Order: sequence, then structure tokens, then C-alpha cells
Amino acid sequence: MTHIKRLLLDILKPHHPDVIDFSKALARTGNCQVRLTVAEIDARTETLQVEIKGDSIDYEQIQAAIAEMGASIHSIDVVEVEHNAADRD
Amino acid sequence: MTHIKRLLLDILKPHHPDVIDFSKALARTGNCQVRLTVAEIDARTETLQVEIKGDSIDYEQIQAAIAEMGASIHSIDVVEVEHNAADRD
Amino acid sequence: MTHIKRLLLDILKPHHPDVIDFSKALARTGNCQVRLTVAEIDARTETLQVEIKGDSIDYEQIQAAIAEMGASIHSIDVVEVEHNAADRD
Amino acid sequence: MTHIKRLLLDILKPHHPDVIDFSKALARTGNCQVRLTVAEIDARTETLQVEIKGDSIDYEQIQAAIAEMGASIHSIDVVEVEHNAADRD
Amino acid sequence: MTHIKRLLLDILKPHHPDVIDFSKALARTGNCQVRLTVAEIDARTETLQVEIKGDSIDYEQIQAAIAEMGASIHSIDVVEVEHNAADRD
Amino acid sequence: MTHIKRLLLDILKPHHPDVIDFSKALARTGNCQVRLTVAEIDARTETLQVEIKGDSIDYEQIQAAIAEMGASIHSIDVVEVEHNAADRD
Amino acid sequence: MTHIKRLLLDILKPHHPDVIDFSKALARTGNCQVRLTVAEIDARTETLQVEIKGDSIDYEQIQAAIAEMGASIHSIDVVEVEHNAADRD
Repeated sequence: MTHIKRLLLDILKPHHPDVIDFSKALARTGNCQVRLTVAEIDARTETLQVEIKGDSIDYEQIQAAIAEMGASIHSIDVVEVEHNAADRD
Repeated sequence: MTHIKRLLLDILKPHHPDVIDFSKALARTGNCQVRLTVAEIDARTETLQVEIKGDSIDYEQIQAAIAEMGASIHSIDVVEVEHNAADRD
Repeated sequence: MTHIKRLLLDILKPHHPDVIDFSKALARTGNCQVRLTVAEIDARTETLQVEIKGDSIDYEQIQAAIAEMGASIHSIDVVEVEHNAADRD
Repeated sequence: MTHIKRLLLDILKPHHPDVIDFSKALARTGNCQVRLTVAEIDARTETLQVEIKGDSIDYEQIQAAIAEMGASIHSIDVVEVEHNAADRD
Repeated sequence: MTHIKRLLLDILKPHHPDVIDFSKALARTGNCQVRLTVAEIDARTETLQVEIKGDSIDYEQIQAAIAEMGASIHSIDVVEVEHNAADRD
Repeated sequence: MTHIKRLLLDILKPHHPDVIDFSKALARTGNCQVRLTVAEIDARTETLQVEIKGDSIDYEQIQAAIAEMGASIHSIDVVEVEHNAADRD
Repeated sequence: MTHIKRLLLDILKPHHPDVIDFSKALARTGNCQVRLTVAEIDARTETLQVEIKGDSIDYEQIQAAIAEMGASIHSIDVVEVEHNAADRD
């Protein structure tokens, strides 16, 4: 089975919801730790660097949660995956 | 349950209360560690970088304590949250 | 037996598959950890820095997987190998 | 109970007492470790960066000791506090 | 007995063999770990920084292996040795 | 009891004794570790950065040893002290 | 007893012997670890930064070994010594 262990995403977010609720929503997509850094704030949007760590991150759920909150993934900057033949898919 | 584990806030504070009492008040909102750095001091206000760490930071209480002391949150720079499906909400 | 323990590759990749699926495919060539960083994105390609770590990386399988996804190895920047006379070839 | 764990003070000190006796006097205000760095020396005064660490620093005693030796706190640069509801005030 | 524990060599290598096979050949001169970094690539040669670590590196075998592959040692940048009177020569 | 745990001194030393004997003499003032770095050498003197670490450094003995060897303390740059009410003076 | 634990020497060495044999000779003056870095190479000499670590470095033997190989100590940059009253001289 191949697990996504870490993602570093560049995200463009509207001012609402705030970064607290935004991080919580991402963390709830699985047993994840989310570390969100506000890189830039302008009139309408916030540019965020979001690191997500977990045993097995569900990227589709992450994409869905982000879209649901009116935000968008500007780029995937870092991906860390691990394959372990012993775990069943 | 989703827990806020760490916050880095940019805060604008009047000279009173001093940074000692200000930090103590924030720490008392829960079992938190507070690390306050004075970034700038001018005639009427102090710009502070405040890092708050804890097992489960209560952001509403933090906001209330800050407002009560006549200070304001200029920006939330970093948020770290953790979701653990095993903990009940 | 001589084992490749770590590779740092400079890779040129078309936009599809995305970096998530690309990393997963590389990790599946053996029990590997893959850490992919997007260095540059232009109209048609993405320049990636890909670090692969494992107990015994199969370089031929890595080359095949990369070619199969329409990407190419621009350069091998770092190689780490270990020889242990005690392991049989 | 809320404990002050660490202070970083900017202090202006006359040449006497010397930095050895000055540090010892601050440490004696409680079971503290004091790390004093001389930032600047001019004709009449020395500018010191003083880090004080302890389980529970008594800031009032620190202020009193500093005043008693003819020195003054130019600024409090960093404060670290911890609140532990389990300890009685 | 005096053991060479670590060498940092600046090596000039023709394009063939590639850096994978080149590193493996160096590692096989003893139970060594080899970390090869490609510093520069030009039309005919590659400039490599090669770190070799082991319990007791055989420098003569290293020199022979390098010459056999048509490469040359530009300089020895770092040598780490250990003498232990207790080990017999 | 208040103990001096660490001192960073800026010392001006004549060429004799050499830095080996000079360091040894300072270390002998108590169970100390001395780390001496030669910052500058000119025709008549050497400017040294001397770090002294110990469980309880005797500063008077350090001053005496330095004077005895014809050197002088240009400045005390860092002092680290610890007070432990439990140790008797 | 006072022990020299670490020396950082700036050494000027002729091209022969090479840095491998030169380091081995220094290490053999006692149970030492020697880390030699080539700082500069010119037509006739090599400028070396040599770090020697050991439980009790014999500086006289080091000086003798260096002179015997036609090299010279340009400067002693760092000395680390430890005094332990419990060890007999």
C-alpha cells in the first residue's frame, strides 16, 4: 500500500472562514496534523503555506474540503509518500 | 476531536498591563505555555509576537482575554491543529 | 552486496500524471520513501527534485517507471550506496 | 498557578558592581540560572542582555535587586510563562 | 593500528561508467558507505565530491578502483583517521 | 549557594607562556574545562577568547592566574551563574 | 592532572608525505582522532587545518612528528583542556 505522509500546499483562501476553522476542517479529513502559515494577506484573499502530516493522507478529501471552503490549491510544493509492500491496498 | 496545538499571533498592545501580566493572562485561558517577544515599542503601543502552545488551546478565550486588556490581534501567522478521531468532541 | 540507499534526481515531468501519482509510482518500485519538491513549473513541464530513500533501491525500476510516465532524468545529483560483504549478492 | 519560566531583559548597569556580582545577585532572587551577555560598554554604563530561567521566577524580586544595584530595565524582550491549573496559587 | 575513517575526495570522472556504478565500485573496496555529489558536468567529464566512510578504508584500493574506471583524484580535501594502540597492526 | 558555571573572557596575553600552558594554568584553578580561541596575533600580544566551564568557577583564582602570567582581562563577555538554595554557602 | 582534549592547528606542509600518511603519523602520537582539511594548495606547500582530539593529547609528540615530516605549525587556533584534581599527575 502507498501512503501519502506529508504534503506542502500553496493555497489561496478567501478571508472567511478564518485560518483557525480552515485548518480544523483540513485536519478532520483524517488523523492529520496541519500547520498553516499565512504568507500574504491582501484585500480579498490570503496566500497560505499549508503543511499536512499524517499516517495516510486522503488527498481527494483534502481537495474536496478546500473547494468546499471557497479556496483553491495554487500548487503542490512537496509530496512525501511511502510504499510498504506488507500493507494490503 | 480537533485540537489547536500552537498559535503564532501578531498583537498590538497598549503599554498597560505590562508584558509579564499580559502573558500570564493569556496562559491562564488554559494549560498553556506562552512565549511573548516584543518586536516594536512606540509612544502608545507595543507590537508583540506571541506564541501559544498547549494540548488544546481555546481560541475564543484567547480572543476575549486579549480584548479585555485593550489589545488587538493584528494577524494570525501560524496555526497548528491536530485531529484525532479517537477523542470524543 | 552493494545497496543504493539514497538518490537525489533532477527530473523533468509533463503536467500529467500529477506529482501525487508520480511520487506513488516511484515509491512502488520497492519499499521506498519518496520526497518530491517542485522546483519549477512552466507551460508544458515541471522540474522536480526527487529524493528516494530505501534499504535497496532498484535503479532500473526507477528509470523504467519514470520513462513510462513520460518524464526524464535530467541528472543524478547525489548517490549514496553501502557495501556489506556479509550480505550475499 | 502561573509561573514565569524565562525572561530576556535589556538592562543598563553602572560599572559597579561587576557583571559577576550582578549576575549572582539576580540568581539569588530564587533558584534561577542567569546568563548575562555584555552587549555594549561605554564611559559610565554597560548595556546587558540578561536571560533568567527558573521554575518560577519572582519578577518583583528581580526588579528590586536590579534597582538596588543602581541599574535599570531598559526593556523586557521575551517572556515565557506556563499555567498549570493543577498547581495551587 | 591506524584506521582511515573518512575521506572527502574531489574526483574528475568521464561520463561512463555512470555515477551509480562508480559509487558501487568504490563501496566494494571494503565495507564502505559512499556519498557522491555531482558538482559539475561538462562535455567530457563530471566533477564529483565523493565522501567515503568506513571502519577502515583501504586508500590504495580506492585509488586503484578510481584509476581502473578512467577517473582521477583531483584532491584529497578531508582525511579523518583514528589510532587505537589496542588494535594490532 | 551561587555558582559561576561559565565565563567568556576576552584576554590580552603576551606571547609567553604559549596558549597550551596558558590554558592549562586556567584549568588548574578548579575542575574546569577551558576552551581558548586565538582571535588575533600581533607583534607583542595575542587576543584570546577564553571560555571557562565548571561546576563552580573561582573567579578570583582565575584573575590571579591571568595576572601571574602577565596577561589581562580585556572584558567579561558572558557570565552564567546558578543559585541553588539547597547548597550551603 | 590537566589533559589537552582538543587542538586546532594551522599547519604548513610540503607535498610529501601526502595528507593520508601525514594524518596517520599525527594520530599515532597517542590514541587520537585527526581530522585534516586542506585549506590551500600551492606550488610547494599545502596549508592544512588539523583538528586533533583525544583523551590526553601529548603536544610535544605532536610538535616532534610535525617537524620530522618537514612541516611547521603556523598557529594554534583553539586549545581545549580539562583539569581533574582526582587524576594523579
